[in-house]
Amino acid sequence: MINIQSIVERIREIINDENSRQLKETLEGFHAADLVDIFAEITPQERLACFKQLDEDKASDLLEYLPAQLQVELLGEIDEELASRLIAKMPHDEAADVLGDMEEDESESYLDKLPHKFSSEVRELLTYNEESAGGIMNPVVLTVNAESEVKDVLDTIRIKAEKDNLDLYYVYVVDKQSHLLGVASLRKLLTSPVRRKITEIMTTDIVRLHVDDRQDYIADEFMKYQFNALPVVDLYNRLKGIVTWDDVQDIVEEETTEEIYTSSGIATEMVEDEDDILSGNLLHAVKARTPWLFITLIGEFAAVNVAHHFDYTLKFLSIIAIFMPLLTGLGGNIGTQSITLIVRGLSTGQLSLKSAFHHILRETAIGLIIGILFGTLVTLVTWGWQHSVGLGIVVGFSMIVNMMCATLIGTCIPFVLKKINIDPAIASGPVITTTIDVVGLLIYFNCATVYLLHIR
Amino acid sequence: MINIQSIVERIREIINDENSRQLKETLEGFHAADLVDIFAEITPQERLACFKQLDEDKASDLLEYLPAQLQVELLGEIDEELASRLIAKMPHDEAADVLGDMEEDESESYLDKLPHKFSSEVRELLTYNEESAGGIMNPVVLTVNAESEVKDVLDTIRIKAEKDNLDLYYVYVVDKQSHLLGVASLRKLLTSPVRRKITEIMTTDIVRLHVDDRQDYIADEFMKYQFNALPVVDLYNRLKGIVTWDDVQDIVEEETTEEIYTSSGIATEMVEDEDDILSGNLLHAVKARTPWLFITLIGEFAAVNVAHHFDYTLKFLSIIAIFMPLLTGLGGNIGTQSITLIVRGLSTGQLSLKSAFHHILRETAIGLIIGILFGTLVTLVTWGWQHSVGLGIVVGFSMIVNMMCATLIGTCIPFVLKKINIDPAIASGPVITTTIDVVGLLIYFNCATVYLLHIR
Repeated sequence: MINIQSIVERIREIINDENSRQLKETLEGFHAADLVDIFAEITPQERLACFKQLDEDKASDLLEYLPAQLQVELLGEIDEELASRLIAKMPHDEAADVLGDMEEDESESYLDKLPHKFSSEVRELLTYNEESAGGIMNPVVLTVNAESEVKDVLDTIRIKAEKDNLDLYYVYVVDKQSHLLGVASLRKLLTSPVRRKITEIMTTDIVRLHVDDRQDYIADEFMKYQFNALPVVDLYNRLKGIVTWDDVQDIVEEETTEEIYTSSGIATEMVEDEDDILSGNLLHAVKARTPWLFITLIGEFAAVNVAHHFDYTLKFLSIIAIFMPLLTGLGGNIGTQSITLIVRGLSTGQLSLKSAFHHILRETAIGLIIGILFGTLVTLVTWGWQHSVGLGIVVGFSMIVNMMCATLIGTCIPFVLKKINIDPAIASGPVITTTIDVVGLLIYFNCATVYLLHIR
Repeated sequence: MINIQSIVERIREIINDENSRQLKETLEGFHAADLVDIFAEITPQERLACFKQLDEDKASDLLEYLPAQLQVELLGEIDEELASRLIAKMPHDEAADVLGDMEEDESESYLDKLPHKFSSEVRELLTYNEESAGGIMNPVVLTVNAESEVKDVLDTIRIKAEKDNLDLYYVYVVDKQSHLLGVASLRKLLTSPVRRKITEIMTTDIVRLHVDDRQDYIADEFMKYQFNALPVVDLYNRLKGIVTWDDVQDIVEEETTEEIYTSSGIATEMVEDEDDILSGNLLHAVKARTPWLFITLIGEFAAVNVAHHFDYTLKFLSIIAIFMPLLTGLGGNIGTQSITLIVRGLSTGQLSLKSAFHHILRETAIGLIIGILFGTLVTLVTWGWQHSVGLGIVVGFSMIVNMMCATLIGTCIPFVLKKINIDPAIASGPVITTTIDVVGLLIYFNCATVYLLHIR
């Protein structure tokens, strides 16, 4: 673990001393991923001063690791010729990501400066949906034709791998029209006799992705098969590129963020770029946050209506009102626990619809146990505080029923949504709060009314 | 995508026909990862019937992919000699995981039957904490000594890789005492002249893990550097094993689950095995869920106390009570949105303490905008419904202040926790609900009391 703050201070001093050789030496000593941490802490001027000291390989390496915003910032500040050279050194998929984040006229001007082959391949990548296999893949793949022997393949690797900045995991065997025929791992290649034909050692049972496959599906496939890389083909089984596990890491992080946002009632589908919700245009953030709050509003008006319906009870027994937050708060929280467990279980594949009934029973039992625990406690506290055992029992008993119902509802909703093919994550926050508020208050006010009729 | 249901039905039919050759052929056609999906859908008897038809390589491959529970189930049902042979075919780290999930006397009896070298290496793995680099790593690493030439290394790979079931990403260069000196990628190896010495092409700037490193740190290192594998060393820099990216996938999923559980107030640290919360012993689940609910209970009693303090207002204006859920519900939900955004941002590294002030202002502004929107709406609806513009303004104005405070609190709490080195995730569910309930009701009842004094 490196101590960023002290490194940043040292670098600041060197920059102030204008000792460019020392700055260069210091920076070259860090891995590009560590430079990212350093660049995050310094000012734009300092970033530029540092960036200019890196040699081109390191600079292009660093660009790959930097977040989009800093990539665009730095490339905009340096000489356009140099910027093009740095982009051309990046893997195609990364270069396409950088260019895709720029304004169109800006990226066009870079594309025009790039080597023709490179720019036409990057242009093709830019035509795919950013969140599909086509938009994620690297089009430069190590392919060999079906007539090759192991020795030819090893020779090809020697020549191509260095030149093309290739990801080296598997060798893909294709015919003259680029149709994918088989795949051989490097390990298989290195451990096979050099005169063996590649078709004899390749696997033909290939797990492959299609250029239009969505990123959540791609992440699932990687998680399931645990390959380092998967080939991407078009409709006609022509090999178009490969997706590697490091691309998938980014996807998994993005998908998880989306799942977490959705669970707390943030409508990610309302904005084009999820980053906007956290740090972009204010109005985009408002747009993403309002829909589920609006549904909460409607739900809570239903809860208000429930309370209004028992206006008579409230008038005669105003003390009843003050316990409302206790009931709705605890019900909401235990319901949220249940819904979180079920939604996450369905998302990781630990749960399936098959076991729905078992889990509904299980959660309701847990709700009942915790309900009895908390209900008893609440009864005792209320009794001691308000000197009314009747009131204590009303609040405590409502708590038990309320907590049991909350776990029951929190467990059922995600299973039902899953059954009708709606993403269960949307159930979490807002829906559960309002449903529990309505149901919890119904239970509570009914108990209170019975009690009121009894004591009058 | 394969259709599991129709496959399962076909396999059931074949089992009923007792056509074992056809069963064998059908099963062998699937990738082990697909067999996992099939095994999840069939009965234990059917699983055993299928498992017995697989050849040993496929069976051991399948074991690797299966969840722990099914591993133990199947191994317990088959001949012990066969079980030992299957375990011995697995990578060491996976074998250790399987044995670690068994009762100790059971795993001991397997260990005694395994080849001596294998069992002693697995025994060493079992001594490490399951969630440390030592517990995750595979101890079988491709090492070469510093005197080797590229050609020797390639020859070593040819001999060792096949035999030892090695993960082939990098070659690690060590001295006679196993101290880690450098690392060379396969690609570098294949593209270097065969007579070059390995020390000339290896990298000595090695990112390495220590056997005691915790799994969340390991996941962060992989995410940061995007390597396929990282070497694990002991205190004296002696190479003990490697952790590969597929191990990290599992960690990331586990860590995400923990983050999500914690956010909704489930205390994962109260149970040894997180799976217990979802599907194990009921009392373990209760134990994990009670602590934060208990804190919620205390918080809600504070809210009840706030309401009780305004008993006078409630007596004279019982209509005030019915709007309580509206205020607490919407405040809680918008506050949860803010807290989720900030907690996730801090967890992915998109946010840092440096930008705290900016984000607090931003979120409060969003709270104000949405508050004005919803406050106006609530004023109009309440006015129309209760025919009292005064009441409408009280509820609507409280809504504005309430939503603004909710976003402010929801943004501040995680930053403050981060600053004092507490995991911000614990702030999410329970703390925000109760804080907002208390603050929201304070705002509301004060407005209501001013209004009451005004109309009397």
